[in-house]
Amino acid sequence: MQQWVTSVDLVANSEANENVVIKNTNEWTTQEKEVVDGVTDVLDGNKVDAVVCVAGGWAGGSSSSEDFVKNTDLMIKQSLWSSVISAKLASNFLSEGGLLALTGAKAALDATPGMIGYGLAKASVHHLVKSLSDKKGGLPKSSTVLAILPVTFDTPMNRKFMPGGDTSKWTPLEFAAELMWKWADNSDNRPKTGTLVALVTNDGQTELVVDSEK
Amino acid sequence: MQQWVTSVDLVANSEANENVVIKNTNEWTTQEKEVVDGVTDVLDGNKVDAVVCVAGGWAGGSSSSEDFVKNTDLMIKQSLWSSVISAKLASNFLSEGGLLALTGAKAALDATPGMIGYGLAKASVHHLVKSLSDKKGGLPKSSTVLAILPVTFDTPMNRKFMPGGDTSKWTPLEFAAELMWKWADNSDNRPKTGTLVALVTNDGQTELVVDSEK
Repeated sequence: MQQWVTSVDLVANSEANENVVIKNTNEWTTQEKEVVDGVTDVLDGNKVDAVVCVAGGWAGGSSSSEDFVKNTDLMIKQSLWSSVISAKLASNFLSEGGLLALTGAKAALDATPGMIGYGLAKASVHHLVKSLSDKKGGLPKSSTVLAILPVTFDTPMNRKFMPGGDTSKWTPLEFAAELMWKWADNSDNRPKTGTLVALVTNDGQTELVVDSEK
Repeated sequence: MQQWVTSVDLVANSEANENVVIKNTNEWTTQEKEVVDGVTDVLDGNKVDAVVCVAGGWAGGSSSSEDFVKNTDLMIKQSLWSSVISAKLASNFLSEGGLLALTGAKAALDATPGMIGYGLAKASVHHLVKSLSDKKGGLPKSSTVLAILPVTFDTPMNRKFMPGGDTSKWTPLEFAAELMWKWADNSDNRPKTGTLVALVTNDGQTELVVDSEK
């Protein structure tokens, strides 16, 4: 099976077949128009098998932090804007029986007092997944919407900012990439639509923990 | 007990003792500065017994709605911006043992496919309440944070837009106002901090349903 990938990001990805480069990060609806118009051009009437949203970021702080509102704003833009625009792309361009995969956070299944903005933004993504999984959520027929809920990914940035962290509990990016491929490739490989799938890594081994939401 | 009330709103309230009128509805951090500066001026070094956020609004639509992103943007601005800025006000200006009351929605305890933006914005408010209720959430010592989760308030706008609705199940605004007063007046009258308190009205009688979150 041949892959054909369009990257939608702030910078072009040389490994993608097509790129839609986002310029607007200030207005949600302007960014939506930019992305939807760009993808419409690239697809030229075709549909896609999967829409995968792995945009996001992290910032900490409780309500007493000087940057509380600023960081919450950033978390909503990075995690929620990207997820909602991805839902719009899926509604417009996903094939019947296709996959929409969003990115939540295992931490946001509970209170997150030390990173309030991050937690509430991810909680809103979890709720989005639940609503989209309903027949009346607006996605194409027989499609699946899932969220992966990472703990910590093993990325160069995380290695830089968390030196001395226990990397045996960090999830390799390859694991997530292979999981997306497996889910996109065949609907039989997917958990039930609406499932929040935590990626829990111990001793370098990652397992999927589903429906861990209380 | 004498009431002293500052209204923070888009228009001045002639019944309030003081008003802070919001001009900025486009940038979260600019609105934060406007509100915090305005309240700092008005309080002149004093603290408050309660911060009550009843800002909000409603818009429907699934992911296939033309206005999906636009309406989700509006819901985040109306419900989440106001709640997060209220949390900042509480962190700065609430007395020890004071009350922060936010407004969630009973519907958002479940999926909301027909009003996705509304549900995810209110779910983020619920998560905010849980995080703020933690000792490390940044609120003053011994304070209480609660959310009321209305179903439908009996307002002139709701009567206009839902003619023929069963108003015997709508919650009178007076009920919410009296509840806020009771909670603000004495901490013994309050549910445990972090509680989501649904307002369920039947035959014109409203009862408080706590911890209905699954």
